[in-house]
Amino acid sequence: MSEKLPSNPTAAIIVIGNEILSGRTQDVNVKFLATRLGELGILLREVRMIPDIEATIIATVNALRAAFDQVFTTGGIGPTHDDITSASVAAAFGVPWEKHPETWARMERHYPPGEFNAARQRMATLPRGAVPIENAISIAPGFSIGNVHVMAGVPRIMQAMFESLAPRLPGGRPVRARAVHAKGLLEGRVAEGLAAIQARYPALDIGSYPYYRGDGGGVAIVAKGTDEAQAEAAIAEVSRLVAGLGHQPVAGEPPI
Amino acid sequence: MSEKLPSNPTAAIIVIGNEILSGRTQDVNVKFLATRLGELGILLREVRMIPDIEATIIATVNALRAAFDQVFTTGGIGPTHDDITSASVAAAFGVPWEKHPETWARMERHYPPGEFNAARQRMATLPRGAVPIENAISIAPGFSIGNVHVMAGVPRIMQAMFESLAPRLPGGRPVRARAVHAKGLLEGRVAEGLAAIQARYPALDIGSYPYYRGDGGGVAIVAKGTDEAQAEAAIAEVSRLVAGLGHQPVAGEPPI
Repeated sequence: MSEKLPSNPTAAIIVIGNEILSGRTQDVNVKFLATRLGELGILLREVRMIPDIEATIIATVNALRAAFDQVFTTGGIGPTHDDITSASVAAAFGVPWEKHPETWARMERHYPPGEFNAARQRMATLPRGAVPIENAISIAPGFSIGNVHVMAGVPRIMQAMFESLAPRLPGGRPVRARAVHAKGLLEGRVAEGLAAIQARYPALDIGSYPYYRGDGGGVAIVAKGTDEAQAEAAIAEVSRLVAGLGHQPVAGEPPI
Repeated sequence: MSEKLPSNPTAAIIVIGNEILSGRTQDVNVKFLATRLGELGILLREVRMIPDIEATIIATVNALRAAFDQVFTTGGIGPTHDDITSASVAAAFGVPWEKHPETWARMERHYPPGEFNAARQRMATLPRGAVPIENAISIAPGFSIGNVHVMAGVPRIMQAMFESLAPRLPGGRPVRARAVHAKGLLEGRVAEGLAAIQARYPALDIGSYPYYRGDGGGVAIVAKGTDEAQAEAAIAEVSRLVAGLGHQPVAGEPPI
């Protein structure tokens, strides 16, 4: 898809946290961000999931901020010893990691006297030049520095931070999807005809996805692109192809 | 964690598919593989999620197979035009992508006469030197070439392929986890004491994870390492720390 939309801005996500790589935690932030970025016309091109190791964070941030228009990180900005994202991003940019006066003052007011302790003060310490990402859920902000946007790992906090940030992101033409599915269809039967349709719609990304349900499976076919009319025309052709193979095409994705 | 277990083999996962980067599909393969690899004593160090673009697949496979002991890919080995993983891995290794005689013969026997068509024949076409990963669910196999293991994206097929492959993987000392959680606890209050415990157990990876439930949230603290007794001792110290802060420590992860 991304090859076919050269004018849309590109993005990468860095998911930071040992808990993802150990299997403790199921990431759900990638799907949310991928969907929202598509709506904003920003093409997600790569995701990297990495551990809480400073050298790895620095190398990954620097590789991806050079390769893509926008980089989003999730995780590692809390108050505990394993929260090293903020300091590591400062190191990646080669700037000091220092008290952010407005954030510090706001957090100090928020906590009862004596409770704005050293651990919480770390969350008011940002790379020099960072712009805080305020949000309605957590008193501690995320932040943007250059084209890197640093957000929490907890999904509801990350989502609030992203929505606060979204109006500042330069977008592109939104990506639109149309889909059709057919019960009992096998990919091996539809593949050849599908390749021919893809060849006729080079500006679209046409994907084929088998699904399995208690009452049997089938195949869903999705056409994506910035031209909604083209996506609709391609899916109409796919529907005729499926019907010609003796299966009933049903508009949209299969019910979950 | 991985920094602390230098003798265990390392691994990376490459999730291949536009459907992940567009937000259509929620990946669940990383969590499964991360958990199973930990049980085998293989440390998952990085995950990359990339689109169905040949040059990207080649570059990513070659970067990660040089950096880690084992590489697992998921997705892109079906019969349709967007399934380009197998041919791209052949290109990454600089070997021909060719008919695999045993797989070809087995698939030809499987389908009714005339149904082993060109699309399905692609699934019997493997990089030269690849060893098929047979499995109980799909007639089309995954395959291993060098330290790269190529598996399906559909979770139940991927899982069957992984279990078929697992006995061939050189493992290490299994990673063990112990956890405790406390309702109403805030990370900002436990952070300082937790950092001191982490400092006393340098061979462990101690992580702190806030959670949210309908009846209120809390913090879960997890200690991981190959020495189970150390993990237990560390979590006993964390439990005393939590109790000292006036919260009730409860063994294990919080109920979902």
